[in-house]
Amino acid sequence: MTMLKPGDTIGILGGGQLARMMALAAAPLGLDCHVYAPEADSPAFPVAAARTCAGYGDHEALAAFAAAVSVVTYEFENVPADTAAFLASRVPVLPGPRALATTQDRLVEKTFVNDIGLATPAFRAVVSLAELQAAVAELGRPSVLKTRRFGYDGKGQVIVRPGMDLEEAWSTVGGHPSILEAFVPFALEVSVVAARSADGTVSAFDVCENQHRHHILATTRVPAGIGPATEHACKEHAARIAAALDYVGVLAVEFFVLRDAGGEHVLVNEIAPRVHNSGHWTIEGAQTSQFEQHMRAVAGWPLGCVRRTGRVEMANLVGDEVEAWRKIVATPGSHLHLYGKREARPGRKMGHVTRITPE
Amino acid sequence: MTMLKPGDTIGILGGGQLARMMALAAAPLGLDCHVYAPEADSPAFPVAAARTCAGYGDHEALAAFAAAVSVVTYEFENVPADTAAFLASRVPVLPGPRALATTQDRLVEKTFVNDIGLATPAFRAVVSLAELQAAVAELGRPSVLKTRRFGYDGKGQVIVRPGMDLEEAWSTVGGHPSILEAFVPFALEVSVVAARSADGTVSAFDVCENQHRHHILATTRVPAGIGPATEHACKEHAARIAAALDYVGVLAVEFFVLRDAGGEHVLVNEIAPRVHNSGHWTIEGAQTSQFEQHMRAVAGWPLGCVRRTGRVEMANLVGDEVEAWRKIVATPGSHLHLYGKREARPGRKMGHVTRITPE
Repeated sequence: MTMLKPGDTIGILGGGQLARMMALAAAPLGLDCHVYAPEADSPAFPVAAARTCAGYGDHEALAAFAAAVSVVTYEFENVPADTAAFLASRVPVLPGPRALATTQDRLVEKTFVNDIGLATPAFRAVVSLAELQAAVAELGRPSVLKTRRFGYDGKGQVIVRPGMDLEEAWSTVGGHPSILEAFVPFALEVSVVAARSADGTVSAFDVCENQHRHHILATTRVPAGIGPATEHACKEHAARIAAALDYVGVLAVEFFVLRDAGGEHVLVNEIAPRVHNSGHWTIEGAQTSQFEQHMRAVAGWPLGCVRRTGRVEMANLVGDEVEAWRKIVATPGSHLHLYGKREARPGRKMGHVTRITPE
Repeated sequence: MTMLKPGDTIGILGGGQLARMMALAAAPLGLDCHVYAPEADSPAFPVAAARTCAGYGDHEALAAFAAAVSVVTYEFENVPADTAAFLASRVPVLPGPRALATTQDRLVEKTFVNDIGLATPAFRAVVSLAELQAAVAELGRPSVLKTRRFGYDGKGQVIVRPGMDLEEAWSTVGGHPSILEAFVPFALEVSVVAARSADGTVSAFDVCENQHRHHILATTRVPAGIGPATEHACKEHAARIAAALDYVGVLAVEFFVLRDAGGEHVLVNEIAPRVHNSGHWTIEGAQTSQFEQHMRAVAGWPLGCVRRTGRVEMANLVGDEVEAWRKIVATPGSHLHLYGKREARPGRKMGHVTRITPE
């Protein structure tokens, strides 16, 4: 692929906080961003050099967008396949179609992960109530029913607990094609944010330990409370996934860490083909942020150094937690990041705060 | 003054790299920037939430700008007095009119500095060839003739060397009201970037050691190669200047460091009522950047922590030095900052690069 030059423009599909932080990271590299999003109040618009407010099915707007940029990337994995194909026929789209096709469908994703030799929780495809009943009989309770597509932050999933009526579970996921996943008694959840450049070099940030509240990431701590062999395994797994997808850009892999008499083991939980909430700490906590790293990768530039600058704690500001901004700006060493969202709805990610402690 | 809230807008006069880096620093705080500049290709426009492209004398555009923002700041000290007064009658302008009036005129500035008890090189006001002749007779050669107003990066000044024809020197400065400054055999040049908040708190970054080439800043190193007493004196002087100007925002004070048998002494060279090139290192080199610090101060927020993250070296990329970008992005730990300027004219500041070494 061609190497972009300063002055060139990167197109970004999606205008949320991830696109916003990408645009803020692109500017110091001399790269402009053109953000394409349907919502007029998209958080990325105010920091983007160019803005298209249009639907993902608007071929006229997409064609003009493709003509105005050197490469297209995205901030969310649910880019419609038609949109991606339309753009890819005109301009490079990175990460490529294989990453999107694999990660948009939980069944395809988990099958892919197993196929390259990595472990996941046991799972069964489910397309009917009868299949759900059979799958629950096999995998037991509790287990987790998740739609194959369009799930995030706990949306489109339900825990099948002992005694729960399976018809109710099936209707909770709207009868959509789903998977049932065995419940995993994990000790902790970790993730790896890694990047792969156009020349195939992979570089992973240190493993993050994540705590969720109501299915939404609450805090990330780095280093994670895991052994060096597990740290190494997580990074190696992320590199294997990136290589198998012929990936260009930043991706995140979420893992469950299990502990038993044999020590620590990891299972791949989920792949996100994009910059990731658990990598926000890299803005101050690493020599290169995940956002700069992604811009470098899709520009065809060498990856930056991922060395950590200290011990890190990142906390999301969800809903009215954003009201803490006054206290945060008065706390020395706390780095405030607000996303420019006007309305603090419950469950909405409004910003985050990062603290670095020298090691 | 009122404390701005996330979602509020800061107006910036001037659209160069300083405004660009202010806007990039304001975004994570949830503050939007509205950039007002006459040049259509202003580097700050692509990262600003709102843009006004109009002249500084356009009262209609200025009135609309004032109505759209909560506070106005600026990236250059030569804001026309009429522009500042017009805006100040409608909206707070920070730093205030006193800072502008004092620093726009070298004679007023040096007199102010002496009046608050700080030393400068010896100087004489010069409004005619006859006064120049008298001043040179007093201060000797070499000495430096500088226009009182509109000088920067060595523009509007000439060294009066032994044998130089004074008519020629006088015509070099265009016969404008000027000052003649005694030549100072300094050991090195340093600067302090400091901030004063609306409540009067002053916080100074560590002293920077600066090297110039052709009157343009080439490199900044922190810590400076000076003793602790000199470090302390520079910071104290900057704080005294800020307090005397009832200053709100970031300012920079440049000093000459002289060494003799009595030790190190400093003379105030120049005050810049704005973020400053010698403070660019703070983006990676300090917990809070000078740009975030300025946004905090003009927003009425508490100042951030100025702790250094390591030993710092910042180098400007001037003119075609910007071609080094390919090498810089391939060098681990080098932080590239480009300003989005399309044409690399000689002497034009195109970007800078910062390296931090752990201490």
